[in-house]
Amino acid sequence: MSDEIGGKIKALVFDVFGTVVDWRSSITREIRSVGERMGVEADWEAFAGRWRAGYHDGMQAFRDGTDIWKTADQMYRDRLDLLLAEHGITDLSEPETDHLNRAWHRLDPWPDSVEGLTRLKSKFVIGTLSNGNVGLLVNMAKYGGLPWDVVFAGELVGSYKPDPKVYLMAANLLGLEPDEVMMTAAHGGDLIAAKNTGLSTAFVTRPDEFGSSGRKPDLAAPPEADVAASDFIDLAAKLGA
Amino acid sequence: MSDEIGGKIKALVFDVFGTVVDWRSSITREIRSVGERMGVEADWEAFAGRWRAGYHDGMQAFRDGTDIWKTADQMYRDRLDLLLAEHGITDLSEPETDHLNRAWHRLDPWPDSVEGLTRLKSKFVIGTLSNGNVGLLVNMAKYGGLPWDVVFAGELVGSYKPDPKVYLMAANLLGLEPDEVMMTAAHGGDLIAAKNTGLSTAFVTRPDEFGSSGRKPDLAAPPEADVAASDFIDLAAKLGA
Repeated sequence: MSDEIGGKIKALVFDVFGTVVDWRSSITREIRSVGERMGVEADWEAFAGRWRAGYHDGMQAFRDGTDIWKTADQMYRDRLDLLLAEHGITDLSEPETDHLNRAWHRLDPWPDSVEGLTRLKSKFVIGTLSNGNVGLLVNMAKYGGLPWDVVFAGELVGSYKPDPKVYLMAANLLGLEPDEVMMTAAHGGDLIAAKNTGLSTAFVTRPDEFGSSGRKPDLAAPPEADVAASDFIDLAAKLGA
Repeated sequence: MSDEIGGKIKALVFDVFGTVVDWRSSITREIRSVGERMGVEADWEAFAGRWRAGYHDGMQAFRDGTDIWKTADQMYRDRLDLLLAEHGITDLSEPETDHLNRAWHRLDPWPDSVEGLTRLKSKFVIGTLSNGNVGLLVNMAKYGGLPWDVVFAGELVGSYKPDPKVYLMAANLLGLEPDEVMMTAAHGGDLIAAKNTGLSTAFVTRPDEFGSSGRKPDLAAPPEADVAASDFIDLAAKLGA
């Protein structure tokens, strides 16, 4: 399978939150640091999960037609303001709150991400294909040393995955056929949508994405995955990079 | 001047053809190679200049409303087909012609480009801001080792510089104020348009861009340039990178 697939692939595009970076640990650390400084006690990992849910809720509101398209920065800020108030954290200045909100620009890569991406970059074009906004993704890459060739985001077409036009945008801008572009994600739903628009697909496992929250990570590749790998180094090996 | 300017700048975006890469030498070499293989004699540097002019003519036709927006790849191909026919080069297969047209994806950086960009990348976000299409720019970066953080092109808004929306798109997507973004170019007109939309500006000299064609390069910075440098290494030094 891999030889056949690897031969036609020209570019890999990646889901970012959860697939490339460990948002949960990074966000929990940052909000815990702020909370402790303010003398507030809380379940900070749960705070991180609820903050993250604001992003999913914001995207769903756009899909449902009940809200306008917003950047990830804005969706995270909307939810952060609610969560800070709920936790009685009311003493942050605007620059402090903005800095905290940009914790999503400072997410640690999974331990294999930089090495795996660097190997994949030697053979393929590698880029993001995220619902995060371009500025966030660029800053995150600088922070974590993610060696993207190109940064694609739903922002470029004013929509979010799994809208087919987000996936097709990546192929179109690269001047490639959809099946020459491999969507890579730790989330089966992302790969199913990508495959349905004609992209090739790679599944990787990120068993720690959701920590102790009780939410279950996807650990089995969906049938729509052309390649399944344990992490990016395994993926590089399976694609001959 | 540089200290004040360097302090507020967060990102540098670059004109590419002529400013980062030496299109004339690279294109002349590729078309000469094809011509000699076909036994055709011609002034190949003049061919390169006329091929390049097809790009400018295509963009002007869009601005004038007499043609649709096209990728650089398409504009170059339109002109290449005319020039090949004129020179009696009629034996190329479609894959050979397409490969030749992609000579614009294989342009050599100026000798200082990679070192200067690498230094600038250590302090700033660096990206393209070109009228070339995204796929062309990504392939060119792979070919020449250009270490872009992000690839911006007029293609993302369906227009071409000097349309103000192309410049403002870069600032908007990065989440920056226009004057936090520094347009860098060897062409005064590009910098004047960028300054008029609120961007900061850096001029660099590329005295060999036009070779022996008789067309004169811009060798003096326009009054709209915030910084003037001889090349990218000089620019890095002047911006403290």
